[in-house]
Amino acid sequence: MIRRYAFGCPLQTGAVSLDLPKEQDGVPFLEVSRAEKAVTLSMALAKDDLIMGLGENVGPINRRGRRYQSWNSDEFNHTEDRQSLYASHNLLLVLCAAPFALYLDDPGRVTWDLGFTDADTMRIESENGDFDLYIITPEDDAFSAIDLCRQFRRLTGRSYIPPRWALGYIQSRWGYASEEDVKTVARCHREKHIPLDGICLDIDYMDAFRDFTVNKAAIPDLKGLCDRVKADGLHLIPIIDAGVKADENDPVYAEGLKNGYFCRKEDGSVFLAAVWPGLSAFPDFLREEVRTWFGEQYFAMLESGVDGFWNDMNEPALFYSPEGLEDAYGALAAMKGELKAHDASFKLIGAVNGIKNSMDDYRRFFHSMNGKTVRHDRVHNLYGAMMTKAAAEGMRRFAPDRRMLLFTRSSFIGTHRESGVWMGDNFSWWSHLALHLRMLPSLNMAGFIYCGADIGGFGADTEEELLLRWLQLGAFTPLMRNHSALHTREQEIYRFSNWRQMRDAVRVRYALLPFLYSEMMRAILQDGMLFRPLCFDYPLDPHAPTVEDQLMLGESCMIAPVLAPHAKGRYVYLPEDMLMVLFASDTQYTLSHLEKGHHWIDMPDGTFPLFIRRGKAAFLCRAEERSHLVNTDEMTVLGWDHDGEITWYEDDGITADVSLEKGLRHRTFPREA
Amino acid sequence: MIRRYAFGCPLQTGAVSLDLPKEQDGVPFLEVSRAEKAVTLSMALAKDDLIMGLGENVGPINRRGRRYQSWNSDEFNHTEDRQSLYASHNLLLVLCAAPFALYLDDPGRVTWDLGFTDADTMRIESENGDFDLYIITPEDDAFSAIDLCRQFRRLTGRSYIPPRWALGYIQSRWGYASEEDVKTVARCHREKHIPLDGICLDIDYMDAFRDFTVNKAAIPDLKGLCDRVKADGLHLIPIIDAGVKADENDPVYAEGLKNGYFCRKEDGSVFLAAVWPGLSAFPDFLREEVRTWFGEQYFAMLESGVDGFWNDMNEPALFYSPEGLEDAYGALAAMKGELKAHDASFKLIGAVNGIKNSMDDYRRFFHSMNGKTVRHDRVHNLYGAMMTKAAAEGMRRFAPDRRMLLFTRSSFIGTHRESGVWMGDNFSWWSHLALHLRMLPSLNMAGFIYCGADIGGFGADTEEELLLRWLQLGAFTPLMRNHSALHTREQEIYRFSNWRQMRDAVRVRYALLPFLYSEMMRAILQDGMLFRPLCFDYPLDPHAPTVEDQLMLGESCMIAPVLAPHAKGRYVYLPEDMLMVLFASDTQYTLSHLEKGHHWIDMPDGTFPLFIRRGKAAFLCRAEERSHLVNTDEMTVLGWDHDGEITWYEDDGITADVSLEKGLRHRTFPREA
Repeated sequence: MIRRYAFGCPLQTGAVSLDLPKEQDGVPFLEVSRAEKAVTLSMALAKDDLIMGLGENVGPINRRGRRYQSWNSDEFNHTEDRQSLYASHNLLLVLCAAPFALYLDDPGRVTWDLGFTDADTMRIESENGDFDLYIITPEDDAFSAIDLCRQFRRLTGRSYIPPRWALGYIQSRWGYASEEDVKTVARCHREKHIPLDGICLDIDYMDAFRDFTVNKAAIPDLKGLCDRVKADGLHLIPIIDAGVKADENDPVYAEGLKNGYFCRKEDGSVFLAAVWPGLSAFPDFLREEVRTWFGEQYFAMLESGVDGFWNDMNEPALFYSPEGLEDAYGALAAMKGELKAHDASFKLIGAVNGIKNSMDDYRRFFHSMNGKTVRHDRVHNLYGAMMTKAAAEGMRRFAPDRRMLLFTRSSFIGTHRESGVWMGDNFSWWSHLALHLRMLPSLNMAGFIYCGADIGGFGADTEEELLLRWLQLGAFTPLMRNHSALHTREQEIYRFSNWRQMRDAVRVRYALLPFLYSEMMRAILQDGMLFRPLCFDYPLDPHAPTVEDQLMLGESCMIAPVLAPHAKGRYVYLPEDMLMVLFASDTQYTLSHLEKGHHWIDMPDGTFPLFIRRGKAAFLCRAEERSHLVNTDEMTVLGWDHDGEITWYEDDGITADVSLEKGLRHRTFPREA
Repeated sequence: MIRRYAFGCPLQTGAVSLDLPKEQDGVPFLEVSRAEKAVTLSMALAKDDLIMGLGENVGPINRRGRRYQSWNSDEFNHTEDRQSLYASHNLLLVLCAAPFALYLDDPGRVTWDLGFTDADTMRIESENGDFDLYIITPEDDAFSAIDLCRQFRRLTGRSYIPPRWALGYIQSRWGYASEEDVKTVARCHREKHIPLDGICLDIDYMDAFRDFTVNKAAIPDLKGLCDRVKADGLHLIPIIDAGVKADENDPVYAEGLKNGYFCRKEDGSVFLAAVWPGLSAFPDFLREEVRTWFGEQYFAMLESGVDGFWNDMNEPALFYSPEGLEDAYGALAAMKGELKAHDASFKLIGAVNGIKNSMDDYRRFFHSMNGKTVRHDRVHNLYGAMMTKAAAEGMRRFAPDRRMLLFTRSSFIGTHRESGVWMGDNFSWWSHLALHLRMLPSLNMAGFIYCGADIGGFGADTEEELLLRWLQLGAFTPLMRNHSALHTREQEIYRFSNWRQMRDAVRVRYALLPFLYSEMMRAILQDGMLFRPLCFDYPLDPHAPTVEDQLMLGESCMIAPVLAPHAKGRYVYLPEDMLMVLFASDTQYTLSHLEKGHHWIDMPDGTFPLFIRRGKAAFLCRAEERSHLVNTDEMTVLGWDHDGEITWYEDDGITADVSLEKGLRHRTFPREA
C-alpha cells in the first residue's frame, strides 16, 4: 500500500508516475519536526533493524550506522567517508518489526543520519522542506522486501529497456580520439578473439569538446566510421556533456541563446561556468521545450548511425565560474601578506579547491519550473535526470520503434525509466570493486536495472589481477564496460600478460548472455530486481542480512566474486543447497553440488563461480565474438534437481514494444539422472 | 648468512649494526643494470612466489603485483593507490624456490615494481645509485621466513624496549589544549572505569606551536600537572615536531642559529619552510653534534616529569617554503589571462596543491654528512630517523637506567632500536582498520615491535561500530592509542552509547597485559616478531599465504578481528587445532575447541576472539584501571592440551637493563582434565 504525504509546496520532479491523493492523516512511523524551512523525519531503531536503499552511494548494503547526503556530486576520488555520489535516489527500506519503505520526492539536499549520531535513531532532513513523502507498506501479511521494491516501481514506472547488444562487452577510455583509435581497439580485440560489442568515445572525439560536434581532422566521416564499425558488428557510443560551449559560432549555443534556453543568473544574464569546452552555458533542462530542443541535437549523430550515447558532467559538474575564480584570486591577493602564517598554504589550497562544484555557484543560477523561477540548489539533484530525459525523448522521437543505448552519470528517481546508469568515475581500487558489487542491489531497488561500474577502475593505474577480478564480476552486470582515465595505465584486455583469462571471463559473459538478458528482461517487465541482497530472498535466514559480498542474481542464481588480491578462493555462504559452476572459460568449467551453509571454496588459477539454486537452472549458449551471433539454438542447461523445463525470455533485442508474454520461450530437456 | 654488496659510494645511514666486509663477487639472485646514476635490480618471479616486507606501507601483506616507493611522505588521506607512507623500510623477503631477503641501505628514493608492470618480474630502482645491498640467505636447509627476519635483526640491532606502562591504553586528540582538558579526559575515563595509562598532548599544548614550550595560559605549571597526573597513575605524552620556529626570541632557534645547526640552502642561508609554528628552520639531525644539542632540549620537560614523547612532522612535512609560495603566486598571476580555458581550475589547483611537500623544496636544502655536503633529497628518508635518534639519545643521557616512551611518525631502519612508531595519520575508514592489521607483521619484519595505528581513525568522523572493532584489534597491539584530528567527531570512548563494550575491550587488554608484555619482550629479546603472517609459522600449509586478515601473535596465539561493519561473526582459518577464547569482557568469555580448517564463527553481541594453539597457553590476570596495578599474583591459564607449565617474562617494566634470563618466570598449574 502506498500513501502520499505532502510537505510545504512540493516541487514537481516527475519521479512518480502514479497520481495519488494526499493523505490527510499524520505520517505513520516517523516523527516530524520543523526548523525554519527544513523538515526532519525521525524514528527510533531497534538493535537489529536493517536499513537499505539510497541507490547510488558509498558504504555497505545495510546503510545503518552512517550518514549520507542526497547531493549529486562529481567526486571520483570517493573514499569511505563520502556521503554522496553522482546521483540521488531517495528511497529507503526500513526493515524492522513493522517494515516499510519511504520515498522522499525532493530534488534538493536531503541528509540521512541512519544511526550515526545516535546508534538508535534515524533522522532524515530535507533542506527545502517542500516535498512529497511516500510511505509504502506491505500489501499482505506475507511481507517481503522484494514486494516493497515492486510497489515502489509501480509508483515510479517501468525500468528502461536497453537493446540486447548493450549487454555485450564495451571498451572505453578517455583518450580514444580518432578513427584510427577505434579501428585499433576493434582490431586488437579481434586478433585475440576477445568478444566486443561497443566502443565508447569520450570527450576527445569532439571538436574542442563542443557537444554534438566531431573533430573532423581525427574522424573525417562519422557516418562512414559507423558503417564500417557496424559491418564489423560493433556500435559506437559517443559521450554528450551537459554544458554547451559559450561560443557564438557554435550553432547549439547560438540557438539556445536566441531562444532563451539557458539557465540565468539573478540579473537575467546567462550563467556561465567552465567545464571541458571552457566557459559554457547550461540548458535549463527542467523546461519541456528546452528538453525537446536538446533532444533534437542528438538527431544528426543518430542519422550518422550512432545508436548509443552516454551523458556526462550532468550533476552538473562545474570546474569554476568567472565569479568564483575572481573571488579566489581576490582571496589569494588578500592572503599574500600572511606569508609567514603556518596555515597560509591551507588557506590557499582551500580558496582554490573550493572553486570546483561550489555552493556559491549552485546558488548563482536559476531554472524555470512550470513558469516559476527556482534557484538551482533547490532542484540540484534533478538536473542530470532532466538532461537524460531530454536525450531519451529525443532518441524515442527519432526512432519510436527502436531501443537505443543510453546511460548517464547523474540521475534521480524517474531516470530509471529513460536510461541506464554507470556508477560514475571510480578508482582502480579493490575497495571500489567491492563497492561496485554493493551498489548493484541498491540501484536495483531504486529501479536502475541496466547498470554497472567502470571495470578496472577509472582513476589511478589498474593492477592486472584487479582488472581480471573486476571482469569476473562485470561478466554478470548488464553494463559491462572497461573504462579508464587519460594519463592512467592503459587497460584494454589485450595489453596484459594474462589476457587469456580476462578474455575467458568475457567469453563466459557471452555464453551466458541469452540467460542474463532473459533474467534482466524478466526483472524489468515484472518490476523486479536483477540483483538482490541475500536477505531479500531468505528473510528468515538470520545470517543472510550480514552478507555484503554476495548477491542473488535473477530467479535462479547467486554470485560471489573474488574481491581481494592474491585470493585462491573465498568463503561463500549458501542460504540453501546450490550447484556451483566454476568457470575457467565458457567451455571449461566444473560443477559441484554444495549444501546450505558456510564454505571455503577453492577457485584455483583464477577461476570464478556462479551458483544455481537447487531445483532451478541457468543455461549456457555458444559464446561468439559479437552478441548478435549468440543464439539459443543450442543450450547447455545447468541445474541440480531441476525438472528440465526451461522457460526464458527472448526477443529481437531491438524492438521497443515488448511484452513478457510474447517473449517467453519454453524447452524441455531430459531430466538429469 | 648475510652478505654485503656495495654500489657506488654508499651513504652511511647507521641502519646496520654489523660491519660486514664487502663481497667481491656479483650479486646473487638479482640482475643489476645501470642508467646514469640509477641502479636497477631485477629478477624473474615464478607464479606463486611471495614477496613480503617494506615495513610501513599500504597494500596487502603479500606485496606482489603492486608498485611501492621509499619516500617518506605526510599523506593522511592514503588511499589504495598510494605508493609510500611516512617511513621507508627497505627490507624485502622474496619467498621463492631459493628464498632470500634483501635490504637496500639507501636513504634516497627507491621504487619497487613487484610484478606490477610485468606480472613475472620484480624491478627495484635506486635513484641515488649509492647504497649497500645486503642479501640474507637461510642459515641451514630448514628454511624459515622467521629466520630471515631474525638474521635481519642481527644485522640491524635489537628492537626498542618501551616501559611496561606504554602497553596501557592511551587517549589522544589533536585539540587537548589545557590542563583542564587533561583533567577532563582522566576524570571521564575514571567515572566509567575505563582503564587508562597515558594522555597525549598534541601541538595545542605548545606556546604558538614552538617546540619545547608550553602555553602557560593553558598549562601554568607543567611539573605540577605531571605530578598530579602521576599520582593518578597516568603519564603525559607531549608531541615534538621537527621544525623549529624561525623566531630569534625563541631560545632553541637562537642557539641553533648561532651554532649553525640548521639545514642550509645552496647560498649558505638557513632554509626556512612553514610548518605548524609558521616559518621554521630544520635542524640538521644528520650531524652528531646537532643531535646531541636537540636531544638536550627534551631535558626541561623530562625534568618536569614527562617520561614519554611522540615525534611528528619529521618526514619532514613542509607546508610551503617562501620560494615555493612565491612561485605559486607567480604561476597564479601568469594564469590570470587564461580565464576561459577549461583547465584554468586544474592549473590553479595544481599550482597551489603542489607547494606542500614539494620536490622543489626537498632539493632546496642541504645536510652535512661526515663533513660532506649532501642535498636533502639524497638522504630524505633518514631525516625523521635522525630526529628520533636525537630524542632517544637525549632521553638515554637524561636517565640512562630508565626506559621511556618514544614513538615517531617518520622512520628508517635503525629507528627500530631507538623508538616505537605509530602508523601515522590515517582515516576513520574500515579499510584503514584492515590496513592497521596488515602493517603489523610488515613492521615487525623490519624490527618495529612497539607499534600501532590511530584507533578509531585520525581524519574524518568515526562511526561507533568502527571504533569498537578498532579497539578490539588495538587490544592486542603494543601501542594502543585512540587518536583523532581537530574538527572531526570526538571519539573518546565515554562519548558513545556503546561505551561499555568499548571499555570491555580495553579491560580485556589490561587482563592480557602481563601476557602481551611477556610476548612482546620475548620477541624483542630473541630478535623475533610479535605479529607474523600465518605462512611464517605454517610454511607447508598451502592456504596460509593467502590469509591477509589474521595474524599469529607471539608464540601461542592467533588473532582474527572483525574488520567489516554489521558483522555478527567472521570466517577464520585455523592452520591447526586451536582453543578460541571469545571475549565479552575481561571476566566474561567462552572457550571453544576448534579443529584445524575453515570456520564461520559467530561472535554475537560484539564479542571478539583470541585463538590459542593446541598445546600452548595464554593467561589472563585481573584487569585494573592502571597497568601498574595489574600483576601476575593470580592468573587464569587458558589452553587446550597444555601441560600446565607456564613460562613468562616479567620485570619491573622500567629498568633499562633487561635480560631474558633474569625475566623468565615459571609456574605449574594442574593439567586440565
